[in-house]
Amino acid sequence: MLSIADIQAAASTLEGIATRTPLLEFAAVNDQLGGRVFFKPECLQRKGAFKFRGAYNALAAIPADKKAGGVVACSSGNHAQGVAEAARLLGMPAAIVMPSDAPKVKIEGTKQSGADIIFYDRYSEDREAIAKTICAERGATFIHPFNDPLIMAGQGTLGLEIAQDLTDLGLIPDKVLVPASGGGLAAGVSLATHHTFPKAQIFGCEPAGHDDLAESLKAGKPSLAPEQEPASKTEETSYCDALLAPMPGDNSFAVMKDHLTGAVTATNDDIIKAVGFALKELHLVVEPGGAIGLACLLNGAIKLDGGTAVIVLSGGNVDADFLKMVLES
Amino acid sequence: MLSIADIQAAASTLEGIATRTPLLEFAAVNDQLGGRVFFKPECLQRKGAFKFRGAYNALAAIPADKKAGGVVACSSGNHAQGVAEAARLLGMPAAIVMPSDAPKVKIEGTKQSGADIIFYDRYSEDREAIAKTICAERGATFIHPFNDPLIMAGQGTLGLEIAQDLTDLGLIPDKVLVPASGGGLAAGVSLATHHTFPKAQIFGCEPAGHDDLAESLKAGKPSLAPEQEPASKTEETSYCDALLAPMPGDNSFAVMKDHLTGAVTATNDDIIKAVGFALKELHLVVEPGGAIGLACLLNGAIKLDGGTAVIVLSGGNVDADFLKMVLES
Repeated sequence: MLSIADIQAAASTLEGIATRTPLLEFAAVNDQLGGRVFFKPECLQRKGAFKFRGAYNALAAIPADKKAGGVVACSSGNHAQGVAEAARLLGMPAAIVMPSDAPKVKIEGTKQSGADIIFYDRYSEDREAIAKTICAERGATFIHPFNDPLIMAGQGTLGLEIAQDLTDLGLIPDKVLVPASGGGLAAGVSLATHHTFPKAQIFGCEPAGHDDLAESLKAGKPSLAPEQEPASKTEETSYCDALLAPMPGDNSFAVMKDHLTGAVTATNDDIIKAVGFALKELHLVVEPGGAIGLACLLNGAIKLDGGTAVIVLSGGNVDADFLKMVLES
Repeated sequence: MLSIADIQAAASTLEGIATRTPLLEFAAVNDQLGGRVFFKPECLQRKGAFKFRGAYNALAAIPADKKAGGVVACSSGNHAQGVAEAARLLGMPAAIVMPSDAPKVKIEGTKQSGADIIFYDRYSEDREAIAKTICAERGATFIHPFNDPLIMAGQGTLGLEIAQDLTDLGLIPDKVLVPASGGGLAAGVSLATHHTFPKAQIFGCEPAGHDDLAESLKAGKPSLAPEQEPASKTEETSYCDALLAPMPGDNSFAVMKDHLTGAVTATNDDIIKAVGFALKELHLVVEPGGAIGLACLLNGAIKLDGGTAVIVLSGGNVDADFLKMVLES
């Protein structure tokens, strides 16, 4: 089970390597929404998303005799880039199994870090099987995107930073909104922020129609969303390419069920509004999945009620075409 | 003459009111450019630009018996918004004389702060005369956009923050790049950073064809750009709507000539590339004039040479149409 000590250890591993992102507040946003809203902009992180934190923490822990075999990961983009960049920094080869329809900017970012990319069709091929074959051939270590305690601990370091920065300001948050898909980020952040702020309500935010976290919390175990089949065409129904894991992992869910107050959703229309709000009011480029916490505040799923909220903006890797659509809307 | 004590006093006045913007660094940008580049993102400032700092500092100093008369300013946008917002916070009326072709987002931001807006045609009308008439009618105080020591001191507070943050990191910058137009920002920032880092080279960055700062440094006194007539149609030649003052002020120039190493320029093509670079690599929305320091590094006017540079990104108020053009290029 993930512990606060694991997250603190990850923070030491990442010191001077991951970007210590700031906690931002905007007076005009506070006035508009009626409360205090703090943003944790992981779009400013190395490779443009929080995923680098967990990836580096996991890769740094690979035993010396396994390093030469390198690593393999499956990802539509941000885990891909995080693992590829961590491997580059640690001098390990990396192979990434990516869906052929991943955002171009994420494919490009993965290539830039020097990883081998193996494309697959997400509607007809089994990425885990492809990854297993490569691991066997190369003697490589498989890096799970969310169900590995080292990954969760790495993502949790941004929760420690939030806790530190709010403590410095003398503030206690009422609500923390964190994107949730496989649950590595939500597990790490909910544990880390609850450790300092036991009364804070922490919400996992997921795309409408992909509400497997809400379903899992109801069932008390990792479960699929009611309308959802894994790896099916319905995945296309959300713009949040980073939030399409079919259900939480058993390890990440075990942490989340102890620390989350609940799960809320946002639609594609909400996401477009939130990405546009981030461009105009925050002057930040946030990707669709990264904006879901903001979307769940703006759409009223979460009420601010004059209180203090923290929103994790988990990444900024978005194609120009999507931004153009947002600017035109 | 502006002194470091004036800037320190402004920092006290602005504490808890202006946003203490972070100093950002991006590993991938350092790798790409070969050195260390720090960005001071004033696009995250109140009203989306550094101008709020100087405006609040100037308005807070208005004597009690003059407050009821309010303030008047001439501005194409960011000074307008800064003055309007400072007046709102201090409970004073504000009238802003704006060109009718100012960016929509800046007109909107000025209105949101509750100011009266008086539009004028910048090719046929004299904005200073309009402002003088309003001041006489209302008993209002005129707030100059750059030539007032209180304005320069307020803008200089961001230089103090840069100096503090770099000192905390144990770093001394080799080069500081700051946008220059009337020179309020460049005067304040160059004085403040030189105070802590006397060996740093500080460059004013201005649009090609509007190189009145270079000409002024050559002549030793405020001068027009060689090809430029004030308030003429040639102002349209630059996308940098925030950097179109025809020449530096006498007070701002007196400071700049003691602290600037030189002045460099960027073309409209360079500006488009820099705004695009900011969107993609920094995940920040920066307006054309705000990106000119970055443009002058990317276009080679300033060489990094493996050193440490600071780039002031002075604002982020840009219309959606301009961003779409950047995304399409």
